[in-house]
Amino acid sequence: MKKILVINGPNLNLLGRREPAIYGVKTLDAINEDLKRLSLDLNLSLDFFQSNHEGALIDKIQLLEGSYDGAILNAGGFTHSSVALRDAVLAAGVPIVEVHLSNPLAREHYRHRSYLTGAAIGCIAGFGDKSYELALYWFSRN
Amino acid sequence: MKKILVINGPNLNLLGRREPAIYGVKTLDAINEDLKRLSLDLNLSLDFFQSNHEGALIDKIQLLEGSYDGAILNAGGFTHSSVALRDAVLAAGVPIVEVHLSNPLAREHYRHRSYLTGAAIGCIAGFGDKSYELALYWFSRN
Amino acid sequence: MKKILVINGPNLNLLGRREPAIYGVKTLDAINEDLKRLSLDLNLSLDFFQSNHEGALIDKIQLLEGSYDGAILNAGGFTHSSVALRDAVLAAGVPIVEVHLSNPLAREHYRHRSYLTGAAIGCIAGFGDKSYELALYWFSRN
Amino acid sequence: MKKILVINGPNLNLLGRREPAIYGVKTLDAINEDLKRLSLDLNLSLDFFQSNHEGALIDKIQLLEGSYDGAILNAGGFTHSSVALRDAVLAAGVPIVEVHLSNPLAREHYRHRSYLTGAAIGCIAGFGDKSYELALYWFSRN
Amino acid sequence: MKKILVINGPNLNLLGRREPAIYGVKTLDAINEDLKRLSLDLNLSLDFFQSNHEGALIDKIQLLEGSYDGAILNAGGFTHSSVALRDAVLAAGVPIVEVHLSNPLAREHYRHRSYLTGAAIGCIAGFGDKSYELALYWFSRN
Amino acid sequence: MKKILVINGPNLNLLGRREPAIYGVKTLDAINEDLKRLSLDLNLSLDFFQSNHEGALIDKIQLLEGSYDGAILNAGGFTHSSVALRDAVLAAGVPIVEVHLSNPLAREHYRHRSYLTGAAIGCIAGFGDKSYELALYWFSRN
Amino acid sequence: MKKILVINGPNLNLLGRREPAIYGVKTLDAINEDLKRLSLDLNLSLDFFQSNHEGALIDKIQLLEGSYDGAILNAGGFTHSSVALRDAVLAAGVPIVEVHLSNPLAREHYRHRSYLTGAAIGCIAGFGDKSYELALYWFSRN
Amino acid sequence: MKKILVINGPNLNLLGRREPAIYGVKTLDAINEDLKRLSLDLNLSLDFFQSNHEGALIDKIQLLEGSYDGAILNAGGFTHSSVALRDAVLAAGVPIVEVHLSNPLAREHYRHRSYLTGAAIGCIAGFGDKSYELALYWFSRN
Amino acid sequence: MKKILVINGPNLNLLGRREPAIYGVKTLDAINEDLKRLSLDLNLSLDFFQSNHEGALIDKIQLLEGSYDGAILNAGGFTHSSVALRDAVLAAGVPIVEVHLSNPLAREHYRHRSYLTGAAIGCIAGFGDKSYELALYWFSRN
Amino acid sequence: MKKILVINGPNLNLLGRREPAIYGVKTLDAINEDLKRLSLDLNLSLDFFQSNHEGALIDKIQLLEGSYDGAILNAGGFTHSSVALRDAVLAAGVPIVEVHLSNPLAREHYRHRSYLTGAAIGCIAGFGDKSYELALYWFSRN
Amino acid sequence: MKKILVINGPNLNLLGRREPAIYGVKTLDAINEDLKRLSLDLNLSLDFFQSNHEGALIDKIQLLEGSYDGAILNAGGFTHSSVALRDAVLAAGVPIVEVHLSNPLAREHYRHRSYLTGAAIGCIAGFGDKSYELALYWFSRN
Amino acid sequence: MKKILVINGPNLNLLGRREPAIYGVKTLDAINEDLKRLSLDLNLSLDFFQSNHEGALIDKIQLLEGSYDGAILNAGGFTHSSVALRDAVLAAGVPIVEVHLSNPLAREHYRHRSYLTGAAIGCIAGFGDKSYELALYWFSRN
Repeated sequence: MKKILVINGPNLNLLGRREPAIYGVKTLDAINEDLKRLSLDLNLSLDFFQSNHEGALIDKIQLLEGSYDGAILNAGGFTHSSVALRDAVLAAGVPIVEVHLSNPLAREHYRHRSYLTGAAIGCIAGFGDKSYELALYWFSRN
Repeated sequence: MKKILVINGPNLNLLGRREPAIYGVKTLDAINEDLKRLSLDLNLSLDFFQSNHEGALIDKIQLLEGSYDGAILNAGGFTHSSVALRDAVLAAGVPIVEVHLSNPLAREHYRHRSYLTGAAIGCIAGFGDKSYELALYWFSRN
Repeated sequence: MKKILVINGPNLNLLGRREPAIYGVKTLDAINEDLKRLSLDLNLSLDFFQSNHEGALIDKIQLLEGSYDGAILNAGGFTHSSVALRDAVLAAGVPIVEVHLSNPLAREHYRHRSYLTGAAIGCIAGFGDKSYELALYWFSRN
Repeated sequence: MKKILVINGPNLNLLGRREPAIYGVKTLDAINEDLKRLSLDLNLSLDFFQSNHEGALIDKIQLLEGSYDGAILNAGGFTHSSVALRDAVLAAGVPIVEVHLSNPLAREHYRHRSYLTGAAIGCIAGFGDKSYELALYWFSRN
Repeated sequence: MKKILVINGPNLNLLGRREPAIYGVKTLDAINEDLKRLSLDLNLSLDFFQSNHEGALIDKIQLLEGSYDGAILNAGGFTHSSVALRDAVLAAGVPIVEVHLSNPLAREHYRHRSYLTGAAIGCIAGFGDKSYELALYWFSRN
Repeated sequence: MKKILVINGPNLNLLGRREPAIYGVKTLDAINEDLKRLSLDLNLSLDFFQSNHEGALIDKIQLLEGSYDGAILNAGGFTHSSVALRDAVLAAGVPIVEVHLSNPLAREHYRHRSYLTGAAIGCIAGFGDKSYELALYWFSRN
Repeated sequence: MKKILVINGPNLNLLGRREPAIYGVKTLDAINEDLKRLSLDLNLSLDFFQSNHEGALIDKIQLLEGSYDGAILNAGGFTHSSVALRDAVLAAGVPIVEVHLSNPLAREHYRHRSYLTGAAIGCIAGFGDKSYELALYWFSRN
Repeated sequence: MKKILVINGPNLNLLGRREPAIYGVKTLDAINEDLKRLSLDLNLSLDFFQSNHEGALIDKIQLLEGSYDGAILNAGGFTHSSVALRDAVLAAGVPIVEVHLSNPLAREHYRHRSYLTGAAIGCIAGFGDKSYELALYWFSRN
Repeated sequence: MKKILVINGPNLNLLGRREPAIYGVKTLDAINEDLKRLSLDLNLSLDFFQSNHEGALIDKIQLLEGSYDGAILNAGGFTHSSVALRDAVLAAGVPIVEVHLSNPLAREHYRHRSYLTGAAIGCIAGFGDKSYELALYWFSRN
Repeated sequence: MKKILVINGPNLNLLGRREPAIYGVKTLDAINEDLKRLSLDLNLSLDFFQSNHEGALIDKIQLLEGSYDGAILNAGGFTHSSVALRDAVLAAGVPIVEVHLSNPLAREHYRHRSYLTGAAIGCIAGFGDKSYELALYWFSRN
Repeated sequence: MKKILVINGPNLNLLGRREPAIYGVKTLDAINEDLKRLSLDLNLSLDFFQSNHEGALIDKIQLLEGSYDGAILNAGGFTHSSVALRDAVLAAGVPIVEVHLSNPLAREHYRHRSYLTGAAIGCIAGFGDKSYELALYWFSRN
Repeated sequence: MKKILVINGPNLNLLGRREPAIYGVKTLDAINEDLKRLSLDLNLSLDFFQSNHEGALIDKIQLLEGSYDGAILNAGGFTHSSVALRDAVLAAGVPIVEVHLSNPLAREHYRHRSYLTGAAIGCIAGFGDKSYELALYWFSRN
């Protein structure tokens, strides 16, 4: 049974309350519960981590190897500004899937650049919280 | 049972033979067979269409509504140059998922701009032929 | 009596159904009927051609000379991407008026560049289907 | 009977004498006489205003509402530099048609940006003094 | 008792009628009355000047020194296009506070560049007509 | 009595010692004392928070709602690099006023871009520590 | 005896009639006859293909392998806009020489970018119809 | 005896008082007196005109032909923003020499673009008020 | 005996394991031991600090003055994104030498911009772990 | 018998030793010998010149007229930086063919700009030392 | 009696023969003779230097101090590419006037950037060989 | 004993006299003497070469291999403009260390681009003449 860590970055703990027109009304807890349920069907073990601190996210990614078989990463606003996070993903030693609720390329200009792309195994964007589900599904089949 | 059309654009008929270091050694036929098999598990009906002609792709997308419940579109090189294809996707009337084998954002500069993004329901990139599978999975759950 | 060809490019066959907030609810057939009526008043003979194929539009423009006294061209999405279409307009041998329903300069950035401008005799944009009428009127007075 | 004001900006009073290769040999007075004649046919009442002063053009546009049913505006060089003129057009309260004798997009780079586009109802460019006639024709049919 | 001149540039005389979604429904006269009232509380003497003419604004700014202790300047559309106005502010000899009703940096791209910034003593933007009040308050405390 | 939190970002704890030619010789404590005094006059309750940690600032902004009626935010260097901070401000639920001691637009190029602008209620820049006072004054009148 | 296909893209069928100041007065048929004659001297077998359809050019290039030992490609306007054509050239399996009558780098800005360069074996530009002859000569010596 | 008009644009009436580190301490009147004296030596007749109004400068340039044999133009801040002034210079009918006290290319970025260059006969920049003298000298020798 | 602090930023704790083709196979501990040995020869006292947290690095730099005579800073990915770190370096009060293992200017585009350069005393890049040694050597001679 | 000079610029004397993966293992002398042999077949007289000095290349190009019927120029790194060399080619008075071993457009960004293109008669790039042969062939047929 | 050196850069020895439409038909010798004559009237001593070698121009400029009271420099194509020449002008120790026959700002884009501007005392451009005369005149009056 | 050549480019022979605020008051001879002394301590043999001629620098670099074990290169202004110098460094066959007295990235924009970086073994910038010493030290330890 593969162990996967779902990592959420800054302000994703506010889901449901933050700009619902863009991010939907579902809270992060509700999303995580749904993912938990799905992970059982897909025979995956799931843990969760959220932080608003870039350094804490990097620390966590550095600890993936040995403890997890992969990670799903929604880095929120750090996606567009953090070279350090990219370097951590490159050095992670386990596959990391980049996900986004909305499609950054369809939003403000400064959200078009993702430092994670190319470092992550692949990218899934625009399906709302289903983006996480597709990432889970990928882990179940690889 | 949902009907989904898998649409492949220019040069994707060459898969397996074209730049295998980037696109893999699996042919389009082999990919389609695997997708067919998976579609049965997911209770989806699947058809396939490939063309090197931008106009033929647009014609086909205009005919989706009424015949299909959705489409999976890998527009190949047209992704980066065709405003007309984008307009067709916007007017399609059924959800279209944009997929890519490799991650265009991790390749040449002129592959960074996708005219489909924002018009398509979402984007899945970088998972090789698994990108199509994730799109199928999304249709099976929506 | 001058003979004029009205040429519409990709997705304009979807008028009325495609993004009505931008392009209006009138179908291309309805527009063409109105133009036909107006052409009688203006003593012009009118034919129509629509295609989603860049090559077909170029073929048609190459055949204008000798058959028509001019053309009205709404090249849709090709306006912004087709150098080949521009070359065809430059070589057409009869005056071609560029028209747009909406004003491309007031829309997305990639619609700001028109390869037709400078090759066409002039440009009329932003008046909805009246843009075609103004072009007809110009032919009636030149 | 609709009342329309034809507004010409800087240096257009020099028409006929100014760069005739680009702007033609017809004077502004001659153009205005032709427009006057045409306006009778089209059942429109026509007034004329020309100024080299950006402020005077803005003052005049602010006075349109209540006095005129619309305006035809050739803002000359101010087209490319005046945010204030754009703001005036946006607040005008009556439809304003942007016209150009030549096609700015086919000329120097700094003439490619029009602050009026998007604020004006539409744009007619490249038909020489016929650009004004087409604008008149539009008012006669709307 | 300090004497302050409130200078408003092009189209600000249309406040209340011009794009109310952006600029609010309060007229310039109403704003000025409120400012007058507040100036009494703050022990400031207040005059007002509005013009749509760039040259008239420059002339007025050149006359500030000796007559006023400072000015509050909302240069409207000239903010983004007038190097000459910047030069006048730099040479004014009294402190000038730049104000904006909306926040230009949150609007169209061509409103992001302010030629006044760096020439003015400081900038207050985005508080609607309260922007003027904050400027008054600054004069009362410096 | 409104409760306002004054939030200062990285290196603002060094005020008085850090580049005094730009930021002045007054320490953050001295500024805070002056603000405290002024808040009594303006009938506002004031708390202070400073951190060099982007994550800590985001955490704090997420806790504003329910505890404070608004905040004054000088995000220092994070102003120009943190999309995550912008997202936090957008989701804050209480009005936040962006302040700067100097005017970033009059400094190095990389200080011209503020991710906060448009997310904050308004911006006050260039008045030294008086920028905070003007923000306080705004809260006292809204 | 090597078999070579000469492929001409959009509007090159108009040679002799299209912008003769740039492209010369010689028709494509006349050029092809001269090339035919030269090919005999160089011991090469020559076929010709021309199309205004991007898709038809891609189809043809996909069929080169097995039928021809190489191709000479003047892609006309598609040179500057077609990523799909580039992908086809990359996958062709036989050497393709890019030729141009005029030198695109010495013309309009949008003709400076060639998607073929780097995919083709080499590029010959600016020698009029002699560009084709030099390409033939290369095939005769490799 | 040639008649020359010296035209000064916005804020040049403030010379001596405006940013003396850049523009020197000599007033415009003092400069004009020196030029007057020099013009006698050079057998030229000299008049002067200054305005802060772009429109007034354009009006004056339109009146040069017939009244003057040439003009010396320091357009101040309008140099960098006024397409309309450029158009007036192009249509002037007499040679106009562009002068600058300082060298705009050695100053702020927005002063690098001169709309006058290419329209004026030539440009003299960086010699302080001697720039005018060199222009006078040119008229005396042509 | 000078006291120097060696500060390493994000992911440098992974040296030896992280992209060894770029960063080498030597661990940070091994590098630090070598530096320790060299510092004895050069009569310098050496301490070490590593963190993945931007804020922690800023906190540490703020504490340099009074405790250390200088610092060697490899800010890793923060080099390219952190204005706040630059501000800390500017205010540090002791000389800081910027070092890089590889040469950022020879790598990805987003690594070309260093916010530290100009704030640090100088920069040493491209010598692998020898970059730190050269920095030590500088401290021993200044 | 036409006389042609083959001019090679900086570092081309190192061919065979310099970056053989890009430029091949053949020395310049070996290339020149092959060209010499071919020139006899083509009835051309051939001389050679190589220099690392921009000025020496310009001097030589200025002396072509009267001594040679044309030149083949591989300007090496000067291709991308020397406006002066371009000016010399423009003034040469005999046709000059620009050649490159590799295709600069397929290499680093700063090799994309050729100052020679448009000044030279045409360009041949990407065929290794065969590029020179094609140029010879062109001279033999013109 | 002031000693002035007239320094001409690459290809200016070809004047009269090189692109006469831009540079005129007068040779450099003829220009120099005219300048010699004028220098006598202006009581200046004149020497001449021309080279196509950037290094030779730099060497010469380094030798100005002590031998000449100033120089007139037309650096030709080096104007737009040579930082080293700029550094030499900055260090020259005597005033250097930058001259151009044509106006570089009115020509190709790559001629818009002058590395000399800001280093030279001033710039005179567009007056043909009279540009040199104006520079002489300046030396005679300073 | 390693043999190292110290190569200085244009204007560095003027050190001590050229812009001392940036480059210091120490002459190149004095720097070289200090380096000579240090080289004895470090057991290195040192030669010196300076030229203002790009070609002479390239010639010298081509001769390094076989005569020297490495070089220290301060290419002055050529750093920012010479692709040919970069090509020479790439082909040198011995390690070359790029040094700068000041930090080019902290100066004018056109000094930000170094063609040497990536070709040289590493870069040391900003330590004044100590930059050379650090380079020597590197050679002594490698």
